[in-house]
Amino acid sequence: MASSECAFCRVVAGELPSTVIAEEERAIAFMDVLPATEGHLLVVPRTHTRDLLSAEPADLAACVLLAQRMARLLRDRLGASGVNLVQSSGAAAWQTVFHLYLHVVPRYPGDPCRLPWIPSHGDPAKIAAAAARLTSDEPLT
Amino acid sequence: MASSECAFCRVVAGELPSTVIAEEERAIAFMDVLPATEGHLLVVPRTHTRDLLSAEPADLAACVLLAQRMARLLRDRLGASGVNLVQSSGAAAWQTVFHLYLHVVPRYPGDPCRLPWIPSHGDPAKIAAAAARLTSDEPLT
Repeated sequence: MASSECAFCRVVAGELPSTVIAEEERAIAFMDVLPATEGHLLVVPRTHTRDLLSAEPADLAACVLLAQRMARLLRDRLGASGVNLVQSSGAAAWQTVFHLYLHVVPRYPGDPCRLPWIPSHGDPAKIAAAAARLTSDEPLT
Repeated sequence: MASSECAFCRVVAGELPSTVIAEEERAIAFMDVLPATEGHLLVVPRTHTRDLLSAEPADLAACVLLAQRMARLLRDRLGASGVNLVQSSGAAAWQTVFHLYLHVVPRYPGDPCRLPWIPSHGDPAKIAAAAARLTSDEPLT
């Protein structure tokens, strides 16, 4: 994809203004302008790729390792007492820019973030049925 | 930590029942018994580590690459149209088992998951102030 068509390629290229916190060979971290909490960052690979499923292994590993470095920085510099990583692949998963990104969300006691689901026990038979389909030897159709 | 003290070490060791979907040298994937959606998996490193901040780079990379493999499997076998990765480090970030884990949540149009925050524009001055603290040259106190 030409950088002019992808907002995050334009951030990587310096064509869109952003507040960059860290730059590495394969990935950069910058402030999210739609922050869930104070210090919310995004980590993206420099090379365009759509999402988790399409990413080159080296880019994906570089992103998660940069996210780890940012998590430590958020703890050390902003006093975050926890961190969430959130990755969204596909419109059904809330992906809004189609260049792989990883949210690094610092967490503070009593902050307004809430889980996206209510943890509750699933039906064991349904879980087993899904597992059977995931581990089936049948060729993909 | 002795495996008897950590639920996920016990899963890795086969001491607690679980439905394992994939096993690799450094990481395993198994069904979450508290599923957000059909096919919800957890990926954990075999070696005990508390969270994202404490993880060895090789374990962290192995987990995210196994999560990628699982995301593709969820698409191919269960017809997921999207996938979220969610990692929780610290009680303030909803961590409930203190052995690094990565949620791999398949997403389907109209499923009940909702974002944990409402995306809205942050105050640019506050974002800049947080960025300044993150990139300060001052030594950590």
